[in-house]
Amino acid sequence: MPSLLLDKNKCLGNIERMSRTASQHHLGFRPHFKTHQSAHIGNWFREFDVSSITVSSFQMAEYFARSGWEDILVAFPFNPGEITALNRLLDISRISVLIDNREALMQMHRLKKPVHFFIDIDTGYGRTGVKSDAEETIHQLITDASERGKLIFSGFYCHAGHSYRAEGQPEREEIHMKALTDLGRLKQQFREHTPLVLYGDTPNCSTQNDFRGIDELTPGNFVFYDLFQSRIGSCGMEEIAVAMACPVAGKYPGEGRILVHGGAVHFSKESLNIGATPVFGQMVNSSGKGWVNSGPEYYLTALSQEHGTISGGNALMEDYRIGDLAYFLPVHSCLTANLMREYVTLDGLRIGTMNS
Amino acid sequence: MPSLLLDKNKCLGNIERMSRTASQHHLGFRPHFKTHQSAHIGNWFREFDVSSITVSSFQMAEYFARSGWEDILVAFPFNPGEITALNRLLDISRISVLIDNREALMQMHRLKKPVHFFIDIDTGYGRTGVKSDAEETIHQLITDASERGKLIFSGFYCHAGHSYRAEGQPEREEIHMKALTDLGRLKQQFREHTPLVLYGDTPNCSTQNDFRGIDELTPGNFVFYDLFQSRIGSCGMEEIAVAMACPVAGKYPGEGRILVHGGAVHFSKESLNIGATPVFGQMVNSSGKGWVNSGPEYYLTALSQEHGTISGGNALMEDYRIGDLAYFLPVHSCLTANLMREYVTLDGLRIGTMNS
Repeated sequence: MPSLLLDKNKCLGNIERMSRTASQHHLGFRPHFKTHQSAHIGNWFREFDVSSITVSSFQMAEYFARSGWEDILVAFPFNPGEITALNRLLDISRISVLIDNREALMQMHRLKKPVHFFIDIDTGYGRTGVKSDAEETIHQLITDASERGKLIFSGFYCHAGHSYRAEGQPEREEIHMKALTDLGRLKQQFREHTPLVLYGDTPNCSTQNDFRGIDELTPGNFVFYDLFQSRIGSCGMEEIAVAMACPVAGKYPGEGRILVHGGAVHFSKESLNIGATPVFGQMVNSSGKGWVNSGPEYYLTALSQEHGTISGGNALMEDYRIGDLAYFLPVHSCLTANLMREYVTLDGLRIGTMNS
Repeated sequence: MPSLLLDKNKCLGNIERMSRTASQHHLGFRPHFKTHQSAHIGNWFREFDVSSITVSSFQMAEYFARSGWEDILVAFPFNPGEITALNRLLDISRISVLIDNREALMQMHRLKKPVHFFIDIDTGYGRTGVKSDAEETIHQLITDASERGKLIFSGFYCHAGHSYRAEGQPEREEIHMKALTDLGRLKQQFREHTPLVLYGDTPNCSTQNDFRGIDELTPGNFVFYDLFQSRIGSCGMEEIAVAMACPVAGKYPGEGRILVHGGAVHFSKESLNIGATPVFGQMVNSSGKGWVNSGPEYYLTALSQEHGTISGGNALMEDYRIGDLAYFLPVHSCLTANLMREYVTLDGLRIGTMNS
């Protein structure tokens, strides 16, 4: 069956570089743990003096709180269905939440302890958050919160996720600079509250050099990177720290197809277009205990539940026997890791996740 | 957090209808269990005299063998990396495997007990299988197997999965008739081996009335159906037996967007196009304990890891408060169920899966 290989050295290198980016700019580093979802891998961050983290659900917050993390931001707009989970967690960790609307705020009853919150700011991504120019709304949220007690305004959070769909680095830089400008203006405008500014998507945190006004970086994907990030220039192929190992199960020379055991329940159906073709993974070659990217490019071009198809692979037919492992860089490592629920290091150590 | 609701009555209705289709045509019924992946739901099939099943991996075979299923076909081309798992399972169940190439067959050493195998036949899908006109290859596989001992040729297996991408019912019928013709010819040609013919994708098994030459039906998705199947006419919307319940977490009236907690790690990134828009789920209304499809159509049009966005939802803003549950029919129930790893029936019973 397929397994998700993890090159620990590449992973530690990725953590180290991002940690250095943060310290060079005198920023806090609050990495997002949604990518690896693993207490074991989380502990690797402690070597880099990380003590506060970001997660994307209360379920994840609970897992990491029970793994000893004492400062956790749940970076998903709070909804009152989570009050019970929040109260339970407040006994063991400092939990911060994300707010972007008054309705959720006004339903935050029955808090056992004071809760810090960040206001989610939308600088153009258009997924969540208060629009960065809606100062009146932001003012109202801060006022409402202070009148309710137990809700402590900590600052602003921004995920400029439109960096992922930018057409090239100049547009990405424009997105980044607009976010810095907008967040800087809000920081100034609400300075009486000494707001912290939390920011950080992997593309911008990996490539930008200006973070003025930011207090903490919160990227997540960089821990592994993936094919998508390498395509948009966030990383080199050699920095991608995970690869799928999939048994070859069929060869169809007449049609140039190779079948591997590795499908949508392993890779996820996230694709990226190379030319006009959606691909789900790029083949790499095994090398010693790990893998290298070399030679002609082969892609997974079709996935069903358990099946993965490499097209145009006639030249590969001789190289692979049925049962051999073929290696692939996943398009979106967060979703692949979530599905695989276990890593195997190059030394054969099995590492679990919150879903193991 | 999101949950996957299961309407047991709809599910039992789906099983009953497919069971009736099989018995009306005097066919065996060997349902594919990859969709639900649940021992509990598997047991519901026993009421319909089901005693043999299909699965898509050895991991799944092991789970169901340990749940008491004694006749299991692993409908994924066998690769020699699975020999250990196969031998382990042969002690507790009758396991049949799928073969579509000589290389895999010749590597089937060290079998502890005789193993029945089916030859995978490709009638045009182009994913796996020996081409249906490659009689010489088929003959060679049967001969090679008999010379090795312990490999017992049982017949032919065909998943005509191109029925999923057919442009309408006439093309789907053409695909089905070609499969019947090709399989019938092979059955006749290799009649000295009295081959069984196993066949069945959900679209064809749900809509066709001619199954001559077939011995067993093997569809899987029908147990729940989903938005995709309803769109191509395999089922009515009211037969879809699962729905996602997702908390509303944000409302953005200026842009008509509603945010729910329900993303790629819940729904999967499987989409279907409605007009030019890829959608990941269709909203339905809660009704008593369940849901109904009524009123205007709203879709999930964007998913990230935990976030789902309903576009064009201005008319909904008044109907939903933050924290309310919104209900959605998933595009591909197999992938959604695989991610959710638990069902909640309308009576509140929690049902686990092999991944719970």
